Amino acid sequence: MSILAVGTVAVDSIETPFGSVSRVLGGSATYISMAARYLSRPVGLLAVVGGDFPESYMRMLEACDLDLQGIEVREGEKTFSWGGKYHYDLNDRDTLFTHLNVLANFEPTVPEAYRKSKVVCLGNLDPDIQCEILDQVDGPDMVICDTMNYWIENTPEGLCRVLERIDCLIVNDAEARELSGEPNLVKAARIIRALGPEILVIKKGEHGALLFADGAVFSAPAYPLEEIQDPTGAGDAFMGGFAGYLASKNCYDIDHLRRAVIYGSAMASFTVEEFGPQRLLALKETEILQRINAFLTLAHIPISPYFIEP
Amino acid sequence: MSILAVGTVAVDSIETPFGSVSRVLGGSATYISMAARYLSRPVGLLAVVGGDFPESYMRMLEACDLDLQGIEVREGEKTFSWGGKYHYDLNDRDTLFTHLNVLANFEPTVPEAYRKSKVVCLGNLDPDIQCEILDQVDGPDMVICDTMNYWIENTPEGLCRVLERIDCLIVNDAEARELSGEPNLVKAARIIRALGPEILVIKKGEHGALLFADGAVFSAPAYPLEEIQDPTGAGDAFMGGFAGYLASKNCYDIDHLRRAVIYGSAMASFTVEEFGPQRLLALKETEILQRINAFLTLAHIPISPYFIEP
Repeated sequence: MSILAVGTVAVDSIETPFGSVSRVLGGSATYISMAARYLSRPVGLLAVVGGDFPESYMRMLEACDLDLQGIEVREGEKTFSWGGKYHYDLNDRDTLFTHLNVLANFEPTVPEAYRKSKVVCLGNLDPDIQCEILDQVDGPDMVICDTMNYWIENTPEGLCRVLERIDCLIVNDAEARELSGEPNLVKAARIIRALGPEILVIKKGEHGALLFADGAVFSAPAYPLEEIQDPTGAGDAFMGGFAGYLASKNCYDIDHLRRAVIYGSAMASFTVEEFGPQRLLALKETEILQRINAFLTLAHIPISPYFIEP
Repeated sequence: MSILAVGTVAVDSIETPFGSVSRVLGGSATYISMAARYLSRPVGLLAVVGGDFPESYMRMLEACDLDLQGIEVREGEKTFSWGGKYHYDLNDRDTLFTHLNVLANFEPTVPEAYRKSKVVCLGNLDPDIQCEILDQVDGPDMVICDTMNYWIENTPEGLCRVLERIDCLIVNDAEARELSGEPNLVKAARIIRALGPEILVIKKGEHGALLFADGAVFSAPAYPLEEIQDPTGAGDAFMGGFAGYLASKNCYDIDHLRRAVIYGSAMASFTVEEFGPQRLLALKETEILQRINAFLTLAHIPISPYFIEP
């Protein structure tokens, strides 16, 4: 595989001020892989679903040209299901329900064909499961990991074991502050990187993202959208775009990382334009390139670096 | 004058988690002019103080090579004085006291030598006073204006009269949302610009700033500081750097506006490094150029625009 995407495949129920949908396809692995596959293939999905997982959703994933041999279907059990409600400003959400169902005893086995993946994306999961995945892969070029407040608060030791083994952590600003115990994001980044990951991306929603790597800080803007239908999956699509770009180039230096952040941001910006993963189903290449161009215009500073006398 | 800076000259008492200072030099006109004068001179200050205004602060303003003939000293009255307390995250502050004193009946007269100023900076003041200033100036190339929630809530008609007469409004994100009644900043920008100002800058503190002008959106990063001593005056120093750059070039197209936002951001980033206006007293040219270079590195996206087939 070019990319291994591990995480949840879920059925989501989402309410936003602009509408609501019930039992749509969701989950971190879904968004990661759907975004990544525009940039690099093959993408292998590793997840577990129940016997109730709609056949139409399986077809949808297939239509995205994803490798699905890593999806375990447990007949007689139910698919992980999440319900959330976003408020007017779309920055905060209430979780209405989280039914772990089949996820409660997920014991992933990485298929033989997935073991030599260039880039491994560990979506938000129990850190012990993330470690089990890493035990089963064979020297990936890059391991990228997500986590959330639940694991920071409840399984800090497990999370620390993951952090020691990954190359890149992608979290949001609240998670970075909680994980580091430090409100200043520059200091927080230093603390988190000392725990393991050489590369840290801090996502700030409508305020863009910060990349810390190789002695540099890169501040990427967010695409200024007038209509945000549904923020669900934006962070996962960011990881997919980020990983997809890096895997396609097979280069992980600071310039490639900067570009990867822009590709991740572009994928996130598409995701929020419609409910669920709808917008990621059939993006055209020109749409992606136009969006990348828009980011270049958005961030363009027409100044040549000043030569400064020593 | 190259720049006319109108606003308050104050004595401030400030508490932050990193220390506190009492009765330091402050006020919007102070910060605007102290930042602007690094980029363009002469800068004329228009404000009113009381007989208690310390002689040492007057010397400090003089040492910044500002034109002070527009400072009215009212003997027997007290200088405007503000006290504020910042909390741990530095984004919110409590106003501890606001003693308007001499500001309560400020009736500004623009000195003859100030009337033909290239750029007029209207610091946060009663909109009626801002209008009175505009009545007294002679066709400036650009009028830049600040305001705050107090005027949005209490004198909306007066504020609308100002907005019709200015070229550029600079507000923070909360003020933009309140003024427009719209949480989405892209929509908010359209609503505000329809009220008058062709150019709108929305400051977002640690998240940078957005510029809306000439059909373009520019997203500028904030400089990632590890130590922020005191945010007081950062917004005014932003206006000073923005105005100073534009006045120095005497050009107001979109590329100059983008650059002006970076100069404004740089001046704001210096300001917060020490309490009060301390950091703006004696900046070196190389420090400013180095900071501008740092912004270029921070925002650099190493991608050439894609050519897209029609």
